[in-house]
Amino acid sequence: EYKVAFLWYISCNAALAATAAALCAYISPAAAGSGIPEVKAYLNGVDAPSILAPGTLFVKIVGSVLGVSAGFVLGKEGPMVHTGSCVASLLGQGGSTKYGLTWRWLRYFKNDLDRRDLITCGAAAGVTAAFRAPVGGVLFALEEATSWWRSALLWRTFSTTAVAAMVLRSLIEYCRSGNCGLFGNGGLIMFDVSSQVTSYTAMDLAVVALLGVLGGLLGALFNFLLDRILRTYSYINEKGAPWKIVLTVAISLVTSCCSFGLPWMTTCTPCPPEFSASGRCPTIGRSGNFKAFRCPPGQYNAMASIFLNTNDDAIRNLFSGGTYNEFGVSTLLTFFAAVYSLGLVTYGVAVPSGLFIPVILSGASFGRLLGMLFGAPTGLDTGLFALLGAASFLGGTMRMTVSVCVILLELTNDLVLLPLIMLVLLISKTVADCFNKGVYDQIVRMKGLPYLEVHREPCMRSLVAGDVVSGPLITFSTVERVGTVVDTLRRTSHNGFPVIEDQPFAPAPELCGLVLRSHLLVLLQSRTFTSGRVKTGAAEVFRKLAPFDFAKAGSGKGLTVDDMDLTEEEMDMYVDLHPITNRSPYTVVENMSLAKAAVLFRELGLRHMCVVPRTPGRPPVVGILTRHDFMPEYIRGLYPNVLRE
Amino acid sequence: EYKVAFLWYISCNAALAATAAALCAYISPAAAGSGIPEVKAYLNGVDAPSILAPGTLFVKIVGSVLGVSAGFVLGKEGPMVHTGSCVASLLGQGGSTKYGLTWRWLRYFKNDLDRRDLITCGAAAGVTAAFRAPVGGVLFALEEATSWWRSALLWRTFSTTAVAAMVLRSLIEYCRSGNCGLFGNGGLIMFDVSSQVTSYTAMDLAVVALLGVLGGLLGALFNFLLDRILRTYSYINEKGAPWKIVLTVAISLVTSCCSFGLPWMTTCTPCPPEFSASGRCPTIGRSGNFKAFRCPPGQYNAMASIFLNTNDDAIRNLFSGGTYNEFGVSTLLTFFAAVYSLGLVTYGVAVPSGLFIPVILSGASFGRLLGMLFGAPTGLDTGLFALLGAASFLGGTMRMTVSVCVILLELTNDLVLLPLIMLVLLISKTVADCFNKGVYDQIVRMKGLPYLEVHREPCMRSLVAGDVVSGPLITFSTVERVGTVVDTLRRTSHNGFPVIEDQPFAPAPELCGLVLRSHLLVLLQSRTFTSGRVKTGAAEVFRKLAPFDFAKAGSGKGLTVDDMDLTEEEMDMYVDLHPITNRSPYTVVENMSLAKAAVLFRELGLRHMCVVPRTPGRPPVVGILTRHDFMPEYIRGLYPNVLRE
Repeated sequence: EYKVAFLWYISCNAALAATAAALCAYISPAAAGSGIPEVKAYLNGVDAPSILAPGTLFVKIVGSVLGVSAGFVLGKEGPMVHTGSCVASLLGQGGSTKYGLTWRWLRYFKNDLDRRDLITCGAAAGVTAAFRAPVGGVLFALEEATSWWRSALLWRTFSTTAVAAMVLRSLIEYCRSGNCGLFGNGGLIMFDVSSQVTSYTAMDLAVVALLGVLGGLLGALFNFLLDRILRTYSYINEKGAPWKIVLTVAISLVTSCCSFGLPWMTTCTPCPPEFSASGRCPTIGRSGNFKAFRCPPGQYNAMASIFLNTNDDAIRNLFSGGTYNEFGVSTLLTFFAAVYSLGLVTYGVAVPSGLFIPVILSGASFGRLLGMLFGAPTGLDTGLFALLGAASFLGGTMRMTVSVCVILLELTNDLVLLPLIMLVLLISKTVADCFNKGVYDQIVRMKGLPYLEVHREPCMRSLVAGDVVSGPLITFSTVERVGTVVDTLRRTSHNGFPVIEDQPFAPAPELCGLVLRSHLLVLLQSRTFTSGRVKTGAAEVFRKLAPFDFAKAGSGKGLTVDDMDLTEEEMDMYVDLHPITNRSPYTVVENMSLAKAAVLFRELGLRHMCVVPRTPGRPPVVGILTRHDFMPEYIRGLYPNVLRE
Repeated sequence: EYKVAFLWYISCNAALAATAAALCAYISPAAAGSGIPEVKAYLNGVDAPSILAPGTLFVKIVGSVLGVSAGFVLGKEGPMVHTGSCVASLLGQGGSTKYGLTWRWLRYFKNDLDRRDLITCGAAAGVTAAFRAPVGGVLFALEEATSWWRSALLWRTFSTTAVAAMVLRSLIEYCRSGNCGLFGNGGLIMFDVSSQVTSYTAMDLAVVALLGVLGGLLGALFNFLLDRILRTYSYINEKGAPWKIVLTVAISLVTSCCSFGLPWMTTCTPCPPEFSASGRCPTIGRSGNFKAFRCPPGQYNAMASIFLNTNDDAIRNLFSGGTYNEFGVSTLLTFFAAVYSLGLVTYGVAVPSGLFIPVILSGASFGRLLGMLFGAPTGLDTGLFALLGAASFLGGTMRMTVSVCVILLELTNDLVLLPLIMLVLLISKTVADCFNKGVYDQIVRMKGLPYLEVHREPCMRSLVAGDVVSGPLITFSTVERVGTVVDTLRRTSHNGFPVIEDQPFAPAPELCGLVLRSHLLVLLQSRTFTSGRVKTGAAEVFRKLAPFDFAKAGSGKGLTVDDMDLTEEEMDMYVDLHPITNRSPYTVVENMSLAKAAVLFRELGLRHMCVVPRTPGRPPVVGILTRHDFMPEYIRGLYPNVLRE
């Protein structure tokens, strides 16, 4: 009977996993993984296509549901953050301009700043929905997601999560009366452990500090191993979509075998008398603390209670207080080892997968284990040790502090425990920071996204801005031949060009400003050309174009140079770039320290920065700096010796 | 008997008030008021002396204790934030260098950045201590105090408040056993209202929204009236220290009359049966819900329970649940009116005084009043209405959102109420923002501190950087005559000077960099002079001086030009400024939009910004921009017409 069940279990899981992987592999590869690193990179200014596309949103939602259903050791939290960001991005742009799925008033949001703000709010709403933690969502958006923080942003994310919390609260209220079938479970607080502790002693603090140190070490090890595994997987994934599906199904089979096989091999435990009397042990139904898997009445299967269960229920069981002997040391040790390893190998497969749940699960089992081994002299409950273990693992892998602290507070509703959670997080983060970076930073770097770090490389201090300027500089005259502009746009992929004011408009060449590729394309499209080299002025341009025609395109590519179909005569005419030139670009002198130039570039969130010469008598622009010129890898390639200093 | 008590009460209060006012008026005027606006301005870059001096710290602590004891309607929260900042500043600098009260290793903190970080952490620790709210402290520091936010700062404030929370927790634990006499009261959660509510309906939301709107209106009115009253007080305070003391004593007399007289005139209320049975009504002792003031046994004086009580107990009584009829409508209305007015007139007197308590008190009484009037059809307790009323007033006056929300959460330990508190804060802040600015911003502006706002004035868009550069520009040559340097330093009060590389070191004058007054003074002090106009080089200078000799001076004035006693011969020698010149100052071109220059200035936290000419053939620097050049008042004075546009 159980063998048939096992076969059904394993094949259902594999089928769900294969479907999810197929969606990811064929429709939207960007939907695989957590999505938090991608959102983080986007908010840092990396405008990679497809991160927030509607296709990604669809695959993320469906794939996440399939992935969680397939019984993988993965969470829905990361994908929910990504989903929130995608929804925010779509709301800000309307659907696609191509299919007319947008509104006119949305043009106010079609710029980098508002789009970034919206997406930050979306990420905050995602965390709110995932953990039912509105304040935690605000803090997550600030601490982990965003790269630029403004007080307006705090207020905006707060409004978003307040609304999200109200909606969530109403839905919970509505579902509690049984209107939503199986979804009606749980209140606003997911793992209520409140009022289990009233005081703690110095001895408790020592054990908790030990937990923090070990959590930090194991968290850093997790990051290290994850990096290795992801690099290995990337070879497999590069071979094509079928290989991705095969890998996913293989991991699914391993997971199914573990989650079904390990409970199978576990011997049954007699129910604690106080629970069996109340009829709460063993549980036959969906969830509950004591699973009856293959056990006679009056006994329960400890391993099945945490492994052959939903992830949420497993966490709830591990956090549960007053159940000191429910899980034996060997059960916890096996479960910890299995979840830690499965969490590592699952993240890289082609399924939307969050890291929160594996980290919380392994942290909680580890904490509970430590609580059973060392907790006897302390007055703390093993359930609280599980909570502190989860905190220490979160601190050790994700390196977030305030947001994890508040999220755990909102998950468990235990304010008295707050100082202990803060202590554990501090210790585990400090320990883990000695070894490597946070897991999301690591993934961003591994994916090769040009993320601008806050901390400048020390080598930048010994270089100046002029040292890293490269390539032939391409500039335009203020009044330029149309053919030259079109050819240049076709030939290069640059997005910004310095504009030089030259004769007859100025006695000597001087920097007029910076013009963007997207604005040039809009201007060319409007065909505001003159036959001679004369200024047309802004009035002429804005008779044909409205300021909002220059708004940033939503998803999709927007205009490209191949959309232009200009005649030969038009190519020989002139176009006045004055009206669309940014006359006040931020500039640095060529002998400006590269470190200080990097501060300017990052703090102001620039995309292009003009480098001007120090001494007169030379061309008015020496070069242009972009995000890529500040990447340590690039500088390391240019100056291998400087970096070694 | 009560008349004698009243005389004693009023004279003790007046004596305490007079002492506090004398301390403030004669020793440290900077210690009066909340201190949060000053800390805010300091963290924005306003380096006003005496804000964080040891004298201020002393008066702040003693004065705050005296002020609270004198029975004023004021809080200890603002002063505790200021105290935390002062302690942080002192810890970072050591005491004074003059008296040798410093350590050598502290030199690593003697720069603007680390000092600012330390003071932010101090402010966070102050909030933690005041409200026993570690996470609220972090958020307060981020949302209200600091002007620049970095992820490192988040982590640092979090560590600080974690330690503060642990210490607080240990002290509470120690005091609970009765070792601290009267101080042993209360746990980590000051006003525990948990588990009074399980659900709320749309009707509740409507009443709560109304509370938010009214709180916003009354909060904005509070800010408006406070501004008027502070302006009136400033005339009185300018007349000298004795007037300050007279004003303080007068307010003390009014407060004493209200807090003793109003309960006197109140009729007694019979105790609710469930409380009188348990012997908890009326309370004779220090605190408690039902004060027996002038009432026979079995009855209590409602007004005395909130007015003739400590502020903390009054708040606890107002927040208390399940006591629907404890305070009548007329009692609450009278109390609200009295506290609202007394809070307004008390803030400006020469006593360290926080605004949190008056705002919470009037908000709580207003909320409870509204709860009694409208609350009957809702299922919410009047105590919860008091809490929501406090939230709405805090949102309406201080305009903080996330931090107030978390502080209230940590004060009351009621997570289920979180969505309601968020809603109330959102509404009240939005309503109040239509009328005026937050109370701290208003006080900063009223004190004339040059605070750099995030939002640029719209007029800045139509001006360029060159438009606001003023005054004769004072520059130095790279190798300058000592006499010229000393004379210039004596003649002007500028803190930064552009340095020009000229013949014979360069073919044409070019901008070498920027030199600071403090660095010039250290260099002059070291007497690294040459008789001819030659470069000495950095080696020569750093043979005499260590890099840390240029560290920012702590409290006190540091070196001044009057400390220099140079001989006539030395005045005729030359000094090489190359080694101390900042070779990479941030510059803007003179035709850069003023709004964009302001972004650069604020985001990078600059003190000086060089304006360079656009066209060659002119002096290499056009002028220098400082904080004052970006003040709207200054620009308004220069261009009255532009501003009107």
